[in-house]
Amino acid sequence: MATETTSGNVVTADALLNSWQGHRRLTRRTIEAFPEDKLYQFSVGGMRPFAEMAWEFLRMAVPIVEGVSTGKWEEFKAEKPGSKADLLRLWDEQTTELNKKFATIPPHRFNEVDKAFGQWESPGVVTIQYAIDNEIHHRGQGYVYLRALGIEPPPFWERN
Amino acid sequence: MATETTSGNVVTADALLNSWQGHRRLTRRTIEAFPEDKLYQFSVGGMRPFAEMAWEFLRMAVPIVEGVSTGKWEEFKAEKPGSKADLLRLWDEQTTELNKKFATIPPHRFNEVDKAFGQWESPGVVTIQYAIDNEIHHRGQGYVYLRALGIEPPPFWERN
Repeated sequence: MATETTSGNVVTADALLNSWQGHRRLTRRTIEAFPEDKLYQFSVGGMRPFAEMAWEFLRMAVPIVEGVSTGKWEEFKAEKPGSKADLLRLWDEQTTELNKKFATIPPHRFNEVDKAFGQWESPGVVTIQYAIDNEIHHRGQGYVYLRALGIEPPPFWERN
Repeated sequence: MATETTSGNVVTADALLNSWQGHRRLTRRTIEAFPEDKLYQFSVGGMRPFAEMAWEFLRMAVPIVEGVSTGKWEEFKAEKPGSKADLLRLWDEQTTELNKKFATIPPHRFNEVDKAFGQWESPGVVTIQYAIDNEIHHRGQGYVYLRALGIEPPPFWERN
């Protein structure tokens, strides 16, 4: 019973990464569900097209994990993908990269407060959770775009 | 350095609850941002109005925490609120209730696998995280409704 009385921790680093990658697989299917032109041009209510949102997820994911791991906060350096195929290719590269970088995070950094990109002061794990929540939030918006286009979005509960 | 080598846990139960309540404060502001009639009638792409989504969040939150805490999975019993004021009143009651019930979860139940509502088999913490993610996902859709109505949604990063 020692763990019950000495620790209130309920999520491991591995579980957090697995949950994120599950969300990223769902986001990938959401990108795939868009016709190429709609991915880059369609939106509702004057918002960004879904390709711009997906580009934001890519710009946040690995740079945030790199920052939490090393304390160095640097912008994402890849070129902005101009087609659905390029976007999906970059997505898959970053899936591998994310697994690699995440594994380098020193355990104490998850709860150490740092100023992400010189601006947002939070424990590492909170900054990571923000990136995940931001992806869920905007992907939900992509679902509305798909519905408005008469396209069935991928099932939300399916993460494999 | 013992914690670094013996534990991969990065999120405490308290941090999980605080993050959820932060999201729920943002969802409350999203409900508030809708004009009463639009909350119950407006949607995009044939989807549900935001009041239906908020009602789903309420039906999930406390019953899930109750189930993780006790192993008893029971439907939410309150009556469906028919006005914005009633919805917000129920929201606030459930905020208090959620804090109370969450505190009763025995630590081992977070990682114990159970069949939520007799259907979804997961560790308790995964079922809780699903409820949070579902709220973020649908709230993001509510943001599109607000934008389509010409209303500025509350800032996503503000959780106080």
